[in-house]
Amino acid sequence: MKQDLDHLMAERGLDALVVVGQTRGNPSLFYMVNGAQVLGGRVIKRRTELPVFVHSPIEREEAAASGLALLNVSQYDYQSILRDKGSELDAEVELYRRIFADLGVQGKVGFYGMADAGRAWLLLNALSAQLDGVEIVAEFSQAVIDRARATKDAAEAERIRQVGRRTAAVVGETIQFLQSHAVKDGALVQGDGTPLTIGRVHQEIRRFLSEQGLEAPEGTIFAIGRDAAIPHNHGSAADLLRLGQTIVFDIYPRELGGYFFDMTRTFCLGYAPPEAELLYRDVYDCLAHVTASYASGTELKLYQRMACEFFEERGHPTIGSDSRSESGYVHGLSHGIGLAVHEEPFSSDVPTNMTVIQPGHIFTCEPGLYYPDRGLGVRIEDVIWIEPEGRVQVLTDFPKELVVKVGA
Amino acid sequence: MKQDLDHLMAERGLDALVVVGQTRGNPSLFYMVNGAQVLGGRVIKRRTELPVFVHSPIEREEAAASGLALLNVSQYDYQSILRDKGSELDAEVELYRRIFADLGVQGKVGFYGMADAGRAWLLLNALSAQLDGVEIVAEFSQAVIDRARATKDAAEAERIRQVGRRTAAVVGETIQFLQSHAVKDGALVQGDGTPLTIGRVHQEIRRFLSEQGLEAPEGTIFAIGRDAAIPHNHGSAADLLRLGQTIVFDIYPRELGGYFFDMTRTFCLGYAPPEAELLYRDVYDCLAHVTASYASGTELKLYQRMACEFFEERGHPTIGSDSRSESGYVHGLSHGIGLAVHEEPFSSDVPTNMTVIQPGHIFTCEPGLYYPDRGLGVRIEDVIWIEPEGRVQVLTDFPKELVVKVGA
Repeated sequence: MKQDLDHLMAERGLDALVVVGQTRGNPSLFYMVNGAQVLGGRVIKRRTELPVFVHSPIEREEAAASGLALLNVSQYDYQSILRDKGSELDAEVELYRRIFADLGVQGKVGFYGMADAGRAWLLLNALSAQLDGVEIVAEFSQAVIDRARATKDAAEAERIRQVGRRTAAVVGETIQFLQSHAVKDGALVQGDGTPLTIGRVHQEIRRFLSEQGLEAPEGTIFAIGRDAAIPHNHGSAADLLRLGQTIVFDIYPRELGGYFFDMTRTFCLGYAPPEAELLYRDVYDCLAHVTASYASGTELKLYQRMACEFFEERGHPTIGSDSRSESGYVHGLSHGIGLAVHEEPFSSDVPTNMTVIQPGHIFTCEPGLYYPDRGLGVRIEDVIWIEPEGRVQVLTDFPKELVVKVGA
Repeated sequence: MKQDLDHLMAERGLDALVVVGQTRGNPSLFYMVNGAQVLGGRVIKRRTELPVFVHSPIEREEAAASGLALLNVSQYDYQSILRDKGSELDAEVELYRRIFADLGVQGKVGFYGMADAGRAWLLLNALSAQLDGVEIVAEFSQAVIDRARATKDAAEAERIRQVGRRTAAVVGETIQFLQSHAVKDGALVQGDGTPLTIGRVHQEIRRFLSEQGLEAPEGTIFAIGRDAAIPHNHGSAADLLRLGQTIVFDIYPRELGGYFFDMTRTFCLGYAPPEAELLYRDVYDCLAHVTASYASGTELKLYQRMACEFFEERGHPTIGSDSRSESGYVHGLSHGIGLAVHEEPFSSDVPTNMTVIQPGHIFTCEPGLYYPDRGLGVRIEDVIWIEPEGRVQVLTDFPKELVVKVGA
């Protein structure tokens, strides 16, 4: 939570932090400006002090909506600095020198936020070499901003729950849309007799999202048959909605410019073949088993291990025994959701991951089984919230039924 | 254009380039993977060789859609590297060492793509120190990928034109939506007699965008009165649609996950007060004057200067004479559009900007005048394409009329 920032900075000996970049695709900056509708800027926070938003003059009104202390960058007259210095890199260093002097930034300064990798490298090396009294530092993993973002306060949890309700509504509307179609030759057909396609369903999902005030900047997975057996395949537009094939519907929208949700349901239209039923049962049971086991204070990677063991016992290959496996259970069990659809905490079962489940964590639980050669894929995904007192709550409120009845 | 990459690499003495990160909010990577629907990865290109996409195993099918040579990162068994090395940073360096060895990457290697600033700094310093035969280099501005992206080939130009057509359709539908309302007490009212609000119009714009298969990940500006006088103000949801006030409608959507367009129209509902008419005339004339003057082979910043001089002659303050001005003409004239809504070429009138207009450039021309104290703002924005033979073509096809008739 944002209120942990001073504590996290102290843990790492940071005197100040700087979050840079554009807000788009840059959740850390978006977080620090409290969702203000700005293109970008710099947020600078000294430990135990309130953050200051160094903003562009034409965004002064939107910057004010951040509630942060403001510093209009126009007061430094960058263009005259640039004329003096003759290079953009030197001008940028001089700009930081002046801003840091005015804000009293000294000591260990951490840099965060999305930037072009090469540019960031040049800039931080130049700041490191040229600014007196400032030591640039960075963290390769578990950075302070990521750590703060990983736990959600009550208001954030409520927003995510609301996005979850609207996401579930879209899933429900999509299923109703499918059910409004007739069946012909083992596939859904439209009113004019032409087959319904995956592309058309995607179009309709986008409409439902828009009506719910949601957007899906990273797309949506609605994939059938063999496509459903490839975890990140979004679905092929020309495919038909054939009965008895597994459909993986994984939807991860966000409120306009805000918090994401993430849910997955798998279903078959009309009927489920026995082998799909068997896989579904294993995934369903795994999800139930893991969800019932979560406990605040335990390591998140233990549950990745638990899912692997569960599936191995049921006879499936997993990445737990062969990290290169492309059949069976082949991906991570959990990722945090928030201003990014994938963020801390992660469940990776590696020695460097020492993440412990704690109050405020909101993460997915998404076991799945994939057999591309058999054209079968099943994934079920709920979102887990660890309440302030450590209780485990499932934020996803939607049935898990394998068969969707069609052609009444 | 992508075909210029080898030439641009040779100019800078680059032996190879690496583009990293997630695709979201990272147009350079999206560009290099040819729009493949992947979450991220690394594209590595040696000079005069075809690029190789180092992708994650669960994205192998989507990665194949890139058309690039593929290298499945699972073959390096990152988890065992991580166990050996004990730190994520050291493991990442070792992974690059192996990939570079397999792909024969040596010499000067440029890094590009969006990454966390601090992480990128740590990684590139570590690669720099630890990889034999590799010299990490970067460019602070006019990086090779930015330069390649700045000029569009025929297929890209056609896609942008099509996004422009659909954007213009949304603007037309929005105006029709406004005109479908009655007038009461000097403002538009809905069928039930309640006032139409800016928030409601934004909602409708999102619906029109969705119907056109467009998305607006950076929002839309539809702002009236004083808000319209602040260039980046998106509009206040509770404001009413009052007659006789300037409305700035600046819309910059993209095809789903692809190319952006950007257009602005300013209008008054019902009638225009004389002072709005005067401002509109000046902005309109400036746009016409500059557009008629563009010539391939001339510096783009000359037209920023031209716009400033034009407005100064008509008695307006500009950032040309006072870079801190917040009244009159207060922003840049042009930015490129493509996979980002703001990209090269830029028109900034600074000594370091030596950008020359060239075939394939697609950029905005968007003069504006702003008087927040008088509640008046006007901006008109067209998109300019420099055709392969150097001819100047306006891609925006939509009337420029100040008054929108309402309440028939």
